[in-house]
Amino acid sequence: MNNGRVLGVLGGMGPLAGATFMQRLTLLTPVDRDQDHIPSILWSDPRVPDRTAARLSGGEDPLPWLLRGIAGLETAGCGAIVIPCNTAHGWFEGMQAVTRLPILHIVHAAGDELLRLHVPAGPIGLMATTGTLAMRLYQDRLAARGYDCLIPSEEEQARIVMPAIDLVKANRIAESYAPLAEVARRLIERGARGVILGCTEIPLGIAAGPPLPFPVADTIDALARAAIAWARPAG
Amino acid sequence: MNNGRVLGVLGGMGPLAGATFMQRLTLLTPVDRDQDHIPSILWSDPRVPDRTAARLSGGEDPLPWLLRGIAGLETAGCGAIVIPCNTAHGWFEGMQAVTRLPILHIVHAAGDELLRLHVPAGPIGLMATTGTLAMRLYQDRLAARGYDCLIPSEEEQARIVMPAIDLVKANRIAESYAPLAEVARRLIERGARGVILGCTEIPLGIAAGPPLPFPVADTIDALARAAIAWARPAG
Repeated sequence: MNNGRVLGVLGGMGPLAGATFMQRLTLLTPVDRDQDHIPSILWSDPRVPDRTAARLSGGEDPLPWLLRGIAGLETAGCGAIVIPCNTAHGWFEGMQAVTRLPILHIVHAAGDELLRLHVPAGPIGLMATTGTLAMRLYQDRLAARGYDCLIPSEEEQARIVMPAIDLVKANRIAESYAPLAEVARRLIERGARGVILGCTEIPLGIAAGPPLPFPVADTIDALARAAIAWARPAG
Repeated sequence: MNNGRVLGVLGGMGPLAGATFMQRLTLLTPVDRDQDHIPSILWSDPRVPDRTAARLSGGEDPLPWLLRGIAGLETAGCGAIVIPCNTAHGWFEGMQAVTRLPILHIVHAAGDELLRLHVPAGPIGLMATTGTLAMRLYQDRLAARGYDCLIPSEEEQARIVMPAIDLVKANRIAESYAPLAEVARRLIERGARGVILGCTEIPLGIAAGPPLPFPVADTIDALARAAIAWARPAG
């Protein structure tokens, strides 16, 4: 049964990832009828300036746009916020500083997902935007949990991963599967015991083809599970 | 390019239909990068009392909940509203009376979808909730466009259609395909030249199996196309 907690979802980065988060939130919530689902507001403003460009090449600062979304979700009556975009977590402290609402951190959720999937400590593959990798959003936090992040080479990142993420953002989902799956396989060959899909476009591409034959931590699902745990603490 | 129009989506009825609307809105918008997508806010409050029960068996009035959502979307800065729930359109006049924002009517969108699919005037199948059928949301409006709605028998409606809709609302999507497809086929056998999936849970079930071999007007996609036409009038 719903307890009145309303979830705020700062989405739009990209919009398909935010919409898919809402779908997965619904499908992962164990209920029998509409009225027991989690009330939630999705603030989908895709105009937020590109996060990787802001971090790496002096692009427009996304923080004012992110803060506008946070304020909108506060006004709407939300009790906590999730952000289904990994790279946006590079501005986590700036966002958390201006709101009294807890923001559930996607990297924490991804770490919990590794536990749920029984991925042992040690080397773990990490696929993410170049911005997320450069900001070390995952590497240091997961080191504290015993994981050592293996990342694609600079050449793989520039030639395969980022173009595949852009395919998803351009609604060319099916084409992104093969390159994303190939990079995930290479990380496993290099010793990773699983792969974190650490950009919310990546699970959208990976879902467009056959399941990968090794553990993958889908950060959309991971964040949905964290949100459900917040909204239904007894469940 | 985006022109600053923000779409308000009054969802949650059910939540999977609202989330899928956001996905289809994204996938049907012809753009190459995040920033050109349509800014939108999804107000997903699944606590809105059951619409069919309110109309047919004296259940709690959903209108106050609907008005709360409309007010929230107005406050958030939206410029128009869509409601990816057919039955909720039984309260359309009550909602439109309290907001200066245009509400894009889902039955109008469905009529446009029939045109887009080149379904000729004449008999058309209509699958919907018992509430939508009883309120004649479709029959009279489509008669004005030359369509004559064929609906399931009372027995088919009670024994097959409504239980299948409830399966979707209980996250048992795959199980709903066979009964929904069977009723659609029967309407075609009775002379319909296409079938309107006039409850936003129904296309979710129909998408879980092989495509039907006759024209179907998916009211989620129809409403997404209407929203895109509003947000990108030059596009």
